[in-house]
Amino acid sequence: MNLLHVDTISETRKKLAAYCERIAPAIEICGLIEAAGRVLAADCYSAENIPPYRRSTVDGYAVRSKDLGAAGDMTPSILRVTGEVVLGTDPGDVTVTAGNCVYVPTGGAVPDGADAVVMVEYCELFGGSMLAVSKSAAPGENVVQVGEDVRMGDLLVRRGRTLRPQDVGALAAAGISMVPVYTPWRVTVISTGDELVPPDEAPGPGQIRDINSYTVAARSAAEGFQVVRTVLVRDDREALLQALTAAKADSDVVVLSGGSSQGKKDMSAELVGLAADSGVLTHGIAAKPGKPTITGFDGESGTLFIGLPGHPAAALMVYEQVLIRLWRDLTEQPEERTVRARITTTLQSAAGRRTFQLVKLTDGEAGELPAAAPVLARSGMIAPMSAADGYFEMSENQEGVKAGDTVCVHLWK
Amino acid sequence: MNLLHVDTISETRKKLAAYCERIAPAIEICGLIEAAGRVLAADCYSAENIPPYRRSTVDGYAVRSKDLGAAGDMTPSILRVTGEVVLGTDPGDVTVTAGNCVYVPTGGAVPDGADAVVMVEYCELFGGSMLAVSKSAAPGENVVQVGEDVRMGDLLVRRGRTLRPQDVGALAAAGISMVPVYTPWRVTVISTGDELVPPDEAPGPGQIRDINSYTVAARSAAEGFQVVRTVLVRDDREALLQALTAAKADSDVVVLSGGSSQGKKDMSAELVGLAADSGVLTHGIAAKPGKPTITGFDGESGTLFIGLPGHPAAALMVYEQVLIRLWRDLTEQPEERTVRARITTTLQSAAGRRTFQLVKLTDGEAGELPAAAPVLARSGMIAPMSAADGYFEMSENQEGVKAGDTVCVHLWK
Repeated sequence: MNLLHVDTISETRKKLAAYCERIAPAIEICGLIEAAGRVLAADCYSAENIPPYRRSTVDGYAVRSKDLGAAGDMTPSILRVTGEVVLGTDPGDVTVTAGNCVYVPTGGAVPDGADAVVMVEYCELFGGSMLAVSKSAAPGENVVQVGEDVRMGDLLVRRGRTLRPQDVGALAAAGISMVPVYTPWRVTVISTGDELVPPDEAPGPGQIRDINSYTVAARSAAEGFQVVRTVLVRDDREALLQALTAAKADSDVVVLSGGSSQGKKDMSAELVGLAADSGVLTHGIAAKPGKPTITGFDGESGTLFIGLPGHPAAALMVYEQVLIRLWRDLTEQPEERTVRARITTTLQSAAGRRTFQLVKLTDGEAGELPAAAPVLARSGMIAPMSAADGYFEMSENQEGVKAGDTVCVHLWK
Repeated sequence: MNLLHVDTISETRKKLAAYCERIAPAIEICGLIEAAGRVLAADCYSAENIPPYRRSTVDGYAVRSKDLGAAGDMTPSILRVTGEVVLGTDPGDVTVTAGNCVYVPTGGAVPDGADAVVMVEYCELFGGSMLAVSKSAAPGENVVQVGEDVRMGDLLVRRGRTLRPQDVGALAAAGISMVPVYTPWRVTVISTGDELVPPDEAPGPGQIRDINSYTVAARSAAEGFQVVRTVLVRDDREALLQALTAAKADSDVVVLSGGSSQGKKDMSAELVGLAADSGVLTHGIAAKPGKPTITGFDGESGTLFIGLPGHPAAALMVYEQVLIRLWRDLTEQPEERTVRARITTTLQSAAGRRTFQLVKLTDGEAGELPAAAPVLARSGMIAPMSAADGYFEMSENQEGVKAGDTVCVHLWK
């Protein structure tokens, strides 16, 4: 058996990351709305206390809680209303002194002297400026203290976070309206194979439709990358080398898909070796699916090359494990959250190779982990990937899993 | 206590859905790459078998498995090579008869007569056209049968699915290059509040920065909606009514944010009642957070109005529960996947109101559900939402949860 030298997946990423400085994504500054959904490139701290003043969370009356004692429905406390806080204006000299209170709208500043706000629902005005309060108040009730939401100097959002709506909100609250985010990689996808026809053409005998340029482009877009182009090239040495070389001008990543057969693998490796001035860095990885994977780096243009297996499921999985995870490492994203589940069936892993197993999840009884049923697929099949909820990994040294074992499932996006 | 008539969240959605025909998202046809990440608007079936021919998953020799018997390293079987299948061409009259074999590359058609393919690694050519095979083969080995991946007539992808890369791949494989997807809603976000300043301005005394137009716009974009504009309007009756009315011309959804104080709530309701020819449909919902919520529908323009609470966390949660879930219902999306967890603390829910509790998840021992620790937040706070991993719901009739209970956590996107 012909044993190529193969790298593990983490070795593959490490080799590429050795060129880290040159493949590190660029950083750009943009407005908050544009930044939503992108990866933050710096830790963002608050230069302010939020709220900057003691803020009422309700429409009500700012009071000294001790003035209310044990006020209740049958035993209201009586206070005098001495003023009103108007939203969006300086409360100025308004203060609350013993036996008095001040009206405050939701979001308004609680005046000095007061330590709580009683909701209007528990208050009744009478005699012009007198107030009957039918409820006691604990100190701090309905008041957000200065800096209680965010304290000056607090870390608001950590670098590497893909900005969610609430993160954008936290930044907006602190007055951070422009943030640094990573510039997404620009990706060219080149599919090759004389047997391939575009999806809108009917394949002739022995032909199949090109799938990988669609799946890889869609996966790239889902990660926020910019897909520069997808091209379908015949198995022609010159045409392929030309496509690879041309893509260096405007792409950070060039994906070459196709070439699971030995002859094609050899040609893909040779061409990547010619296009990338580092030569071929990885020639095969210890993964199932995904063995026939090639990587290279061109220092002059700063372009990363990856040659994927031809089988669609393998191509997508390798793209995820090598390229997407490299991007996440370089942009300092936290580890992806996985869902624990119990595998329903005993499964063997591929000896010495990291094995990725598709699964479908089903919730069981309360208190129990969900059940992960393996979705079985043979090389070259695409439907099982679409039917699966996600996958789990078995490491290179692991013999497999036994029915009932806990596995960590990566959910498909 | 002033008890407004309030709807439950599902009553709110039902009232809006009663106008379903007129608020139903439009459908458009687009190419697969553009369709990735969007919601499929029709069930897609395969009109073909995939693969359309028996396909080899390896580089090897197509054989009759019974010809190999118990072939092994020490006892190879000897076959005659009678031909070769060329990728992308019709295998034509090539067949495999007793004692013979034919070379097939990965992805090539397995010729008639053969029932398995032996990998080249186990084969050695000698004497020009003779082959020593050092491994037996089971029938079907390394062969994907006609229709094994997808059978003609199979459902490929169900309507309501947000198209993932592998779904796009399955559609491409079946030759479906154009698909119907829902046209995203066009959203205008109007923030109102005299106390609000844009994030890039320093708030004066009693002022705070506008957060909701950012969070609601970001949440809209994350769901694929088109954000037409975000505007900040003073608490001025005429200016607000003008903004609401103008937005009907080019928006499917108009979000009015602000107005947690009683006076503002009343004005928001009045203005929505004027702008929407249905009048106000919902005036308050039984949710915590989120009570002061208003909805309306303008039949003439087909515009849906939603007035959100002013508190940022409440605004985002109501937007999620009412508007985003209505969109998902109308586009027939499956229920969102939740992650089961054990709540670490006993918590009370708000009586008669659906309560949304923020949590942070931590994985425990293998076999155990993750722990969900409540993230405590007061009204008007934004940082806890950014710190949380997601939330779980307590229903209107539920008194709360006890420490150790299983809860279903919706993870933030």
